[in-house]
Amino acid sequence: MGFSPLVDQLLDALRVLPGVGPKTAQRMALHLLERDRDGGRRLTEVLGRALVEVGYCRRCRTLTEEEVCALCSSARRDETLLCIVESPADMLAIEEAGGYQGQYYVLHGHLSPLDGIGPEDIGLDRLDGRLDQGAIEEVILATNPTVEGEATAHYIAEQLRERGIRLSRLAYGVPMGGELEYVDGGTLSRAFNGRLPFSGG
Amino acid sequence: MGFSPLVDQLLDALRVLPGVGPKTAQRMALHLLERDRDGGRRLTEVLGRALVEVGYCRRCRTLTEEEVCALCSSARRDETLLCIVESPADMLAIEEAGGYQGQYYVLHGHLSPLDGIGPEDIGLDRLDGRLDQGAIEEVILATNPTVEGEATAHYIAEQLRERGIRLSRLAYGVPMGGELEYVDGGTLSRAFNGRLPFSGG
Ligand SMILES: [Zn+2]
Ligand SMILES: [Zn+2]
Repeated sequence: MGFSPLVDQLLDALRVLPGVGPKTAQRMALHLLERDRDGGRRLTEVLGRALVEVGYCRRCRTLTEEEVCALCSSARRDETLLCIVESPADMLAIEEAGGYQGQYYVLHGHLSPLDGIGPEDIGLDRLDGRLDQGAIEEVILATNPTVEGEATAHYIAEQLRERGIRLSRLAYGVPMGGELEYVDGGTLSRAFNGRLPFSGG
Repeated sequence: MGFSPLVDQLLDALRVLPGVGPKTAQRMALHLLERDRDGGRRLTEVLGRALVEVGYCRRCRTLTEEEVCALCSSARRDETLLCIVESPADMLAIEEAGGYQGQYYVLHGHLSPLDGIGPEDIGLDRLDGRLDQGAIEEVILATNPTVEGEATAHYIAEQLRERGIRLSRLAYGVPMGGELEYVDGGTLSRAFNGRLPFSGG
């Protein structure tokens, strides 16, 4: 025996959420049905609307319900810098870190031939169009420091080679506040090779 | 800067789910918008329907979209036993433990005067009506083994004293201070078999 058919369907439906197993789905369903139906209604309403209205910014491809997102519409961003990231979450993390004032281009993934994900699936067929629009002087390849992210960065570098645009990649190194003994060897040796003159401050 | 206004609203809306903080909400929203819109649509559809259709069983007060739930409608359950639980999750846990063949009555909470939760808020005003309907000979007080669950069991025992019905309480095989829904099936079924007369004192 489980719950009623409709409650059981709700448990199944909640499991589309990442990290939600059977026990968590049960806790969520009972919470919404027993203690927070208003919150549940707000969730259906907002999620339903987001699924219909949220698409990609025509310029940077981040998630937005506008034609062109707020960042791309801003007059205060540097038009000469374009930072390519894998996901809107990466874009947000860079914004929250502060300091970068340029534009973005969001891939929503990385190249993954084994999964059938090619250049057009991550918007690279439209990257030339984006570069034709603007005054971009430097493209910062901020894909993830993973095998797939590296491969994607290399592919983009090849694609843009002809244009004579300056390309850069985020520096590899030891994470701020981390402890050397817990840093993996690959990262550590790259941090060594990429070492910088030290002013001593 | 955050995401677009509608995506930010979605992050807020997801935080009605128990255990979901800002980072998890972000992961969920991006997962639904980037990788599983079909799953997201199914979730809105089923949740929306459940919030409208799921109410309480007229007989046992468990969550169901039917007038009377499948268990209460079954001809195979013992009409002489009534087990009172705090939540539908507890009822499910007892069913999954196996062995118990009687009826249930679900409180959806426990007495909590400080929070303004009195007898009528947990359906105790209708418990007499339920007992008048049937041939109940024994009421098993299976509220949680917590301070509030104990107080609720004592209150019910007082309420039923006049009726001369046999009262029992789950044996303490269940860990003190724990919640029934997280107790393993073996412990739970042993606690059922070892249930004791309840003095109410
Ligand atoms: Zn944009
Ligand atoms: Zn019922």
